[in-house]
Amino acid sequence: MLMEANKPARSGRRNRRSKDRATRRNEAGQNLHLQVPFITRQIPSYDLLGPESLDRIEAAMDRILAEIGIEFRDDPAAVDLFRHAGGQVSAIGNDVWNIKFEPGMIREIVKTAPERFTQHARNPLKSVEIGGDAMVFAPAYGSPFVMDLDQGRRYGTIQDFENLVKLGQSSPWLHHSGGTICEPTDVAVNKRHLDMVYAHMRYSDRGFLGSITAPERAEDSIEMCRLLFGADFVDQNCVIMGNFNTTSPLVLDGVTTQGITAYARAGQGSIHVPFLLGGAVAPLTMAGGVAQCLAESMAACALAQLVRPGVPVVLGGFLSTMALRSGSPTFGTPEPALGSLVMGQMARRFKLPLRCAGNFATSKLPDGQAMQQAMMSMMSAVQGGANFILHSAGFLDGLLSMSYEKFVMDCDMCGALHSYLHGIDVSDDALAVEALAEQGPGQHLFSTQHTLRHYKTAYWDSALNDDQPFETWSEQGGIDMATRANRRWKQVLETYQPPEMAEDTDLALKDFIARKKASMADAWY
Amino acid sequence: MLMEANKPARSGRRNRRSKDRATRRNEAGQNLHLQVPFITRQIPSYDLLGPESLDRIEAAMDRILAEIGIEFRDDPAAVDLFRHAGGQVSAIGNDVWNIKFEPGMIREIVKTAPERFTQHARNPLKSVEIGGDAMVFAPAYGSPFVMDLDQGRRYGTIQDFENLVKLGQSSPWLHHSGGTICEPTDVAVNKRHLDMVYAHMRYSDRGFLGSITAPERAEDSIEMCRLLFGADFVDQNCVIMGNFNTTSPLVLDGVTTQGITAYARAGQGSIHVPFLLGGAVAPLTMAGGVAQCLAESMAACALAQLVRPGVPVVLGGFLSTMALRSGSPTFGTPEPALGSLVMGQMARRFKLPLRCAGNFATSKLPDGQAMQQAMMSMMSAVQGGANFILHSAGFLDGLLSMSYEKFVMDCDMCGALHSYLHGIDVSDDALAVEALAEQGPGQHLFSTQHTLRHYKTAYWDSALNDDQPFETWSEQGGIDMATRANRRWKQVLETYQPPEMAEDTDLALKDFIARKKASMADAWY
Repeated sequence: MLMEANKPARSGRRNRRSKDRATRRNEAGQNLHLQVPFITRQIPSYDLLGPESLDRIEAAMDRILAEIGIEFRDDPAAVDLFRHAGGQVSAIGNDVWNIKFEPGMIREIVKTAPERFTQHARNPLKSVEIGGDAMVFAPAYGSPFVMDLDQGRRYGTIQDFENLVKLGQSSPWLHHSGGTICEPTDVAVNKRHLDMVYAHMRYSDRGFLGSITAPERAEDSIEMCRLLFGADFVDQNCVIMGNFNTTSPLVLDGVTTQGITAYARAGQGSIHVPFLLGGAVAPLTMAGGVAQCLAESMAACALAQLVRPGVPVVLGGFLSTMALRSGSPTFGTPEPALGSLVMGQMARRFKLPLRCAGNFATSKLPDGQAMQQAMMSMMSAVQGGANFILHSAGFLDGLLSMSYEKFVMDCDMCGALHSYLHGIDVSDDALAVEALAEQGPGQHLFSTQHTLRHYKTAYWDSALNDDQPFETWSEQGGIDMATRANRRWKQVLETYQPPEMAEDTDLALKDFIARKKASMADAWY
Repeated sequence: MLMEANKPARSGRRNRRSKDRATRRNEAGQNLHLQVPFITRQIPSYDLLGPESLDRIEAAMDRILAEIGIEFRDDPAAVDLFRHAGGQVSAIGNDVWNIKFEPGMIREIVKTAPERFTQHARNPLKSVEIGGDAMVFAPAYGSPFVMDLDQGRRYGTIQDFENLVKLGQSSPWLHHSGGTICEPTDVAVNKRHLDMVYAHMRYSDRGFLGSITAPERAEDSIEMCRLLFGADFVDQNCVIMGNFNTTSPLVLDGVTTQGITAYARAGQGSIHVPFLLGGAVAPLTMAGGVAQCLAESMAACALAQLVRPGVPVVLGGFLSTMALRSGSPTFGTPEPALGSLVMGQMARRFKLPLRCAGNFATSKLPDGQAMQQAMMSMMSAVQGGANFILHSAGFLDGLLSMSYEKFVMDCDMCGALHSYLHGIDVSDDALAVEALAEQGPGQHLFSTQHTLRHYKTAYWDSALNDDQPFETWSEQGGIDMATRANRRWKQVLETYQPPEMAEDTDLALKDFIARKKASMADAWY
């Protein structure tokens, strides 16, 4: 099924893309030389702490796991797996267990996980690698609201969901379609995963994330992949991932562990992300937050390894702060940016792929605050060597809203980061002593051979920034970046073309969804 | 004179500040625990290149100096100094010389420069150290225009200049008053340096930069310092600096070298900053830009050392890019951010203090573009270990405009960077295993002893970001950061109180200025 679905689609896409590229070559923001299916980081990681400090953090993680333990709920099968692996299980209530782990035990269990793996996309040219020096940008995940400058903030719908998948697919600076790009609140909770997975499959040809809100929804997500990729291919390859939150502090509930089990049993990837709001569900000192984050994420990774050793898992961290006068969560602040750099160091120590940080913002508008917060957070992901950067586009309002404008603004910034991650070439040609010698002191370099050779690719060319002189900008209306972004997302949606999909695949998916939806009444939880 | 001027002023200020702090303690954005006269960097530098790559850049610098040379104009005395030091001088025109330097010669000459030095402020509590792990933030420098949301863009005046010095003085997150904070275009060019230096002296009690536009204006700036600090103190200490641009590529004109000579002869500091617009006055490959930047800045630093060995000098870099379709300069782009990190590495190799990067932006508004560009650039200064970060506040419109709103937005971000530069504490208390154990899994940490002990200082508390819930923000008008910044700078100016100054000092300065102004007709060049 995979080959049938993909072969014609792929060649069709290639033809169209060539034509698109030819016609679009002179528009702003093309940067064709930077386009890649995923980034290979060519700059070193920014290592904040020395090995002794990392030892102290790992020892704190070990103490948390050994002395406090993790609480498991409503999933005796998961508890049994840990018991057999050597965990010290205590029943502490009705279907509630505390499990303590000897120092080093969890790290040992997780050693079967791959350091780097491939998530296959239905378009093989868009498969991504996750781990090592590979980096993948994916849209923000999980907002109940959407926002744009015209309509303001309102609940997300399946129409918004599809629009946002299309916007993501249209940007060369994202590599993955993400997951719950917004909550489609107009579809029943027990059915919306079907429409979400379908939208990713139909309107994008990149990798994506499946449902995790109930084990049967995880199973449905994977089953739809079997229709798209073929059952054998799915059994042997990672084609979908689940993005799981622990219930911090130090709890893994049954819905989560059963979901992790579903993905792992099917050989699919899982991401394990404690959402640590310091002072609320974690210590507000960053070292403590990182130690707790590691304890929780590593325990969840270990579960996946016990279910199916060798299955892909991603260590995760989402460190955030509070406005301590109001208790409101804050994002894009300086302290978690440091914590994310340390998460990168720990992920490399544990030889695990990392999901961390993203274009976070607390602002309610795509304004200066939003982009300043986003950059502070995103740079930590990029410099810390995170591998899967969810929340790379659209994150606003403390993740309560997905913003259409910020989505395209963030995508443009992700493009700039492609150039940043290239690093600096120190070849003789790049050192350019001959270029300076060509005309000598006091003479400009506009027309040197070196300039003519490099000018098309030397610098990132933004599609959204206004770099014109004040007078030109003013004559053209004197608008801000958010207004340009508003125009841009509409233009992108107008010209969007869905990637081709074989009709039998599309029908099989639609049939599966129709049967599933018919099999149950709407439920709103 | 120094002691007389400062003693009463200092104690007066201390009393007022104590009172201010008490009344303001509950306002947003105080962060009293982070306030310092200058920052001591507690995070490692971000080292982009390995030693072999740095060797290649240094070798390219050596080749530029040895094979192409630096052109000097209209200053035979400077040429003589280099000739005596071993430079190979060729007269190439009327008062124009090319000087070539054997590999390593310039680096050897610069070895007499201090790795770190103190610039004294008239308030000794606000003296700053420059070099090593010390970091100083100063306002943007040199814009002919000013902007605010009410009046838009217009030429700067001495009133704007004074306002901006006052805004800087009022922010705890800047450490230095800067120099040409905007051009006071309503004062004659040959007299405006007097009013600018006076404004820094009178409305700030921090360090500042003097005039460099003509040798006699440099002398006037230093002479005014003698009136403020006392002549003996000035001869033995750095109390003012000149910020010099080379004439790129590879030229040092007579006005610049005579200005450098004036500061150095008086024992005062000088900063040497090639403004390298890639593709125009430098190669557009970043390694070549860095090599050229080093050649130019090191040659200028060497001149100061030849005039007075041991005088403070600051290596400088201002790397920027072009929009290659229009030829417009662009700021806050990814490639120079990498180049600035390498400048940091080279400064440490040469054991010199570094001025590099800042809150750059090409945007014409204090919007998302502005703050995203600013952050990308500013993070490179902070992570690269730059020591004197001019352009830390207000930079907009490609440095053509000083923005009132962006000034206070940048100051707030500089505050956040104070927290960032603190790094991560990995003490047992910060690792907080006991805090997690106190309530155990599933229980929030709001009321743990650890939270109560740390909540006031754990996180940066912004004075400008809106971190409230959407509904609260919306009820309060739903305004963006730029609008909040507009309100804030007006409020700050309304409540501004000048630091005290002894009356005789003030009179002496005013008398000097009056006599100087009376001695010459207005000139507008």
